Amino acid sequence: MIEATGGGITAAEGFQAAAVSCGIKAEGPDLALLVADRATSAAAVFTTNLTVAAPVVVSKRHLEQSGGKARAIAVNSGCANACTGDAGMTAAETMAASAAAAVGCPLEHVLVASTGVIGLLLDATRVARGIEAAAPALARDAHAAAARAIMTTDRGPKEAAVRVAGRAGAFVIGGMVKGAGMIEPNMATMLGFLTTDAAVEPPLLRRALSAAVGDTFNAITVDGECSTNDSVFLLASGASGARIDEAAYPHFVEGLRSVCGTLARAIVRGGEGATKLVAVRVSGGRTAEDARRAAKAIANSLLVKTALNGGDPNWGRLVAVAGRAGVAFEPSRGRVRIGPATLFADDTVFAEREPAAAAHLAGDEVELEVDLGTGGGHGATVWTCDLSAQYVRINADYRT
Amino acid sequence: MIEATGGGITAAEGFQAAAVSCGIKAEGPDLALLVADRATSAAAVFTTNLTVAAPVVVSKRHLEQSGGKARAIAVNSGCANACTGDAGMTAAETMAASAAAAVGCPLEHVLVASTGVIGLLLDATRVARGIEAAAPALARDAHAAAARAIMTTDRGPKEAAVRVAGRAGAFVIGGMVKGAGMIEPNMATMLGFLTTDAAVEPPLLRRALSAAVGDTFNAITVDGECSTNDSVFLLASGASGARIDEAAYPHFVEGLRSVCGTLARAIVRGGEGATKLVAVRVSGGRTAEDARRAAKAIANSLLVKTALNGGDPNWGRLVAVAGRAGVAFEPSRGRVRIGPATLFADDTVFAEREPAAAAHLAGDEVELEVDLGTGGGHGATVWTCDLSAQYVRINADYRT
Repeated sequence: MIEATGGGITAAEGFQAAAVSCGIKAEGPDLALLVADRATSAAAVFTTNLTVAAPVVVSKRHLEQSGGKARAIAVNSGCANACTGDAGMTAAETMAASAAAAVGCPLEHVLVASTGVIGLLLDATRVARGIEAAAPALARDAHAAAARAIMTTDRGPKEAAVRVAGRAGAFVIGGMVKGAGMIEPNMATMLGFLTTDAAVEPPLLRRALSAAVGDTFNAITVDGECSTNDSVFLLASGASGARIDEAAYPHFVEGLRSVCGTLARAIVRGGEGATKLVAVRVSGGRTAEDARRAAKAIANSLLVKTALNGGDPNWGRLVAVAGRAGVAFEPSRGRVRIGPATLFADDTVFAEREPAAAAHLAGDEVELEVDLGTGGGHGATVWTCDLSAQYVRINADYRT
Repeated sequence: MIEATGGGITAAEGFQAAAVSCGIKAEGPDLALLVADRATSAAAVFTTNLTVAAPVVVSKRHLEQSGGKARAIAVNSGCANACTGDAGMTAAETMAASAAAAVGCPLEHVLVASTGVIGLLLDATRVARGIEAAAPALARDAHAAAARAIMTTDRGPKEAAVRVAGRAGAFVIGGMVKGAGMIEPNMATMLGFLTTDAAVEPPLLRRALSAAVGDTFNAITVDGECSTNDSVFLLASGASGARIDEAAYPHFVEGLRSVCGTLARAIVRGGEGATKLVAVRVSGGRTAEDARRAAKAIANSLLVKTALNGGDPNWGRLVAVAGRAGVAFEPSRGRVRIGPATLFADDTVFAEREPAAAAHLAGDEVELEVDLGTGGGHGATVWTCDLSAQYVRINADYRT
C-alpha cells in the first residue's frame, strides 16, 4: 500500500534539514543542508551535458570514493558554479569540506549541488559561513524551509512524501526538487533530493533510482534544455527497520516512482510562465524509442506549446511535428486526440468536435494523444507545459 | 560578376506574374500565378516531413511526368491543404487543371503550392475562379503583388534578384519567398519561387538548386519546426541566351546561392515576432555534421533565443547547449564569442567584456560563435532570430 503523507525531505526517519541565507542571492534563503543521523546508503543520477558543473564532478567523485555512502548534502541556489575552471572546483571542494567539518564526517560522505547562473564563481567563504550557521539549526521540521532555499525561478517549493507498507515492513520515501526553466532532464536545471528510512544497499538503491527516474524526471520537459548541474540524490537511512531485498524491490520502486512522479509533474506545472500541465501521449509507435522521441518532439514544439497557451485545438501542428520527428509515422492511419475529442483519424477531419477540444484546453490539466498509425504497440508519455509570453519575459531578463 | 538588381520573380526574361483575391483568406490577395512564355526547365526541393500536403504530392508527380519541365506555378495562401485526404488531392489537382486550362499547357507542366492552416480543405472552386481572373492580368511588373499574395503571417513581401555576367554570357536570377513561422526548412512552412533566364538542362538545374538550398534555406531556423508544405521551385527560361554547362555551373550556383541567401535571411529577419537577425557560427567541430548540429541546437534553444531578445550576453547558455547537442565538445578548450567580445576561453571567464557584447546585442544584426574545442577544422553557420513574447502571442492566437 502506498499513501501520500505530509512533509518532504525529512519525512523519512533519520534525517534533519536546515536553511539559511548566506549572501549568494541578493535576498532570501540560498543554502540548504540535509544531514542524516549516521552514514546512509546513497545513489545519484547526474546531467548528461558534456559541460558539467564543478559540484557534479565533486559529488560523483565522493560517491565513488565512499562506495555509495553519504551523511550530508549541501545545496546552494543563485550560482551554478559551472564553467568556472579550477577555481570553481576548489570552491565546490571547500563547500564539501565545510559541511564535513560542521557535521563531523569524512569528506567523501558529503555531496554538494549548486543551481543558478552559469559562469559565476561560487563564493566559498560565504557558503562556508552559511554551513556553519546551518549546522546548529538542523531540525526535522525545516523541510519546507530547505525546499524554499533551493529555489531559483521556481514559483514555490516542491515537496512530496509517501508511506509504503508491504511485506518488508513500513517505510517512508520523501523528497524535494527545484526546477522551472532549462528543464529537459536527462537531467536538466533541476535538482532533486530524496530520502527513505528503508534499508537499501547501495547497488539496489542505484538500480531503483535509475528505474524511477526514467519515466518521471526524464519524461518531463519545460523548454527542451538540459543543464550543466542536474542531479537527483537518494539517501536511505534504514531507520524504519524495513529492509529492501530483491523480493521487496518492486514495491520500493513503486513508492519511489510515486514520489518522483509527483515531484516531476510539480516541476512542469511550475514551469517558467506555464499555465497548464500537459500530458503528451504517443501510441502506435513501431518501437518504444520512436514513441518517446515523437512525444518529446511534440512536447518541445514551440507551435504546439503556443497553441496550448492560446487554448487553440490546432491538431494540425501535432501531425506536422509527428511527421518531422524522425520516427515511423503513417499519417493516413494516424489519429489525434485532444482531451475527449478525436479531431483527426483515417485522413478525416472532425472539425465539429473542436469546441469539445477547446473546452478541454481551457482547463489547467491537458491531455493530448497522437497515434502514429504504424500498427506497432509501443507508447510513451511525456509531461510538459505550455509556452507563454511570460516565459519569454522571464528568460529575456533573467540576469537583469 | 554578380550584382544585385531590382525586381523579383519576373526579373529574369520570359516570366510574368499576377496576383488576385479569390476568397481563401478573409481579406487581401491570396492567389499568385507565375507563367513562363514557354515551357522551361524546372527543378524543385520539397519538405522532408512525413506528413506531406496534397500540393506537394501533385507538384512532385508533375515534375516526374514532365521530366523536369514546367510552364506555370499556381500558389495560394490561407490554406495549406494538408491532412485533407482524398478530397484535398482532388482540390490540388483541380487547381493545377485550372491553371493548365488558363495558360493552355499540358497538366503536368503546372506546379502548385499552398500555405496556411493545416487540416483545412482547399476550396478548389474559388481557386479556379481566381486563376481565371489572374490569367488575363499576367504582367512582368506584377512581381511585388505576387510576393504579397503568397504571404501568411509574413510582415512584408520578400524578393531578390541578381544579374550574373560570366563566360557563359549575362543572365538574371530572381525570386520570392514566404515564411515567418514553422520555419526550419528541410524545408519548412516556407515557399520559395526562383526564376532565371539562363538556359539550364533539368539535371543540372536540380543539382544547382540542391547545392544552393543546402547552405541557405536549409541553414535557417525560426522555431525548429518543419512544415508539411515547404517547397522551393526553380524555373529556367533560357531567354537570355546564356547557356549553363559544366564550365559555367559554379558561377551559376554562386548567383543562385546569392539570391537564395538573401531570401533565406529575409525569412529569418521577418520571423514571427523577431527583432534580430542572428548568425550562429560554430567552429572547431570534429565533423561538418557536428558543427551543423551544434549550430542548429544553439539556434533553436529557447534560452539562447530569449537571452538574445533581452540583449543579455548570457554566454553560459551557449556552452550549456553545446554540451547537450550530442556532438564532440571539449568545454575546457572551447570558446564563446558574442560580436567582438570573447567571453569564455580556456576555462576562463572574461566578465569585463560583457558590456561590449551587450552593445553588440543591442543592434539588429547579431553574430555568435562557439568553438567546440576539439581541434577539428569543421565549421557551420545557421541563421536564426530571437524569440519574443510577440512570437508567443502570434502563435497562441493564430487561428482566432
